[in-house]
Amino acid sequence: MRILGVDCGTERTGYGVISSDGRRHQFIAAGVIRTETSLTLADRLAAIAAQLRQVCQSYRPEIVAVEEVFHAVNAKSSLKLAHVRGVVLLIAAEAGLPLGEYSPLEVKMSVVGYGRAEKQQVQLMVRSILQIDTEMASHDVSDALAVALCHATRAPFAAAIEATS
Amino acid sequence: MRILGVDCGTERTGYGVISSDGRRHQFIAAGVIRTETSLTLADRLAAIAAQLRQVCQSYRPEIVAVEEVFHAVNAKSSLKLAHVRGVVLLIAAEAGLPLGEYSPLEVKMSVVGYGRAEKQQVQLMVRSILQIDTEMASHDVSDALAVALCHATRAPFAAAIEATS
Repeated sequence: MRILGVDCGTERTGYGVISSDGRRHQFIAAGVIRTETSLTLADRLAAIAAQLRQVCQSYRPEIVAVEEVFHAVNAKSSLKLAHVRGVVLLIAAEAGLPLGEYSPLEVKMSVVGYGRAEKQQVQLMVRSILQIDTEMASHDVSDALAVALCHATRAPFAAAIEATS
Repeated sequence: MRILGVDCGTERTGYGVISSDGRRHQFIAAGVIRTETSLTLADRLAAIAAQLRQVCQSYRPEIVAVEEVFHAVNAKSSLKLAHVRGVVLLIAAEAGLPLGEYSPLEVKMSVVGYGRAEKQQVQLMVRSILQIDTEMASHDVSDALAVALCHATRAPFAAAIEATS
């Protein structure tokens, strides 16, 4: 199964593509979509949409994994993030891809084994699991790969539970 | 100037197209994009996007007017709304259309003259200004036309202020 993980952000949206059979996970590609701070939010959303469509075309994922939106301390930035997330959901739906949604706690639990792990710890574990030698330029990339890994490890369980119920 | 006003909502997104020279306003078209409650949010966003693109193609607006996102009492529904708003902003940007953003207070002030007007009052004034005889099926339509009218009356002032500064 080929999974595209996306870490939404107005300034930087991370993405990571992995291939997984539920136990073994392979790194395929990852990157950050950066948008100019001088752009309006609408133009930023257009830039994110264009690049995400490109990622879907290039790497042909079968599912998109994203974090659930949460009520951050800063309500204004939560709302901005939800705009980006809306666009990510749209791109997934328009590409005919199902969605895996996980809470930040679930993502950290499945990758680090500890729900309150720091971003640095997430990156270390992501690099270790996917055997990535080089340090990643940004936490947006490791966070995107982490949510993809979360889906990779959880989806087989979810499917098994559904099959027996 | 041809203005498309949009009233964002996950279940019902209203739209209204008017033509205006800043003083005289003419009704062109309006409607509601309804999405099935059985659909996922992602599929709803795709349905809204598809129909809004169709509206832009059919009526060729020169600008899109929307309400600013606000922090409602219910944070969860604000976040959902922000997903839809993100998609609306994307469609505007992808169609190359500029955006007019107004607070709910500004919209009500410009249409009814009172910032805390009820939806029913907004609809009555919208119908009166645009000489629409029939009652509208939904407040989503009158709210969409109201934000379009708000832009129609405010844009000339904004342009004049910019020209003198």
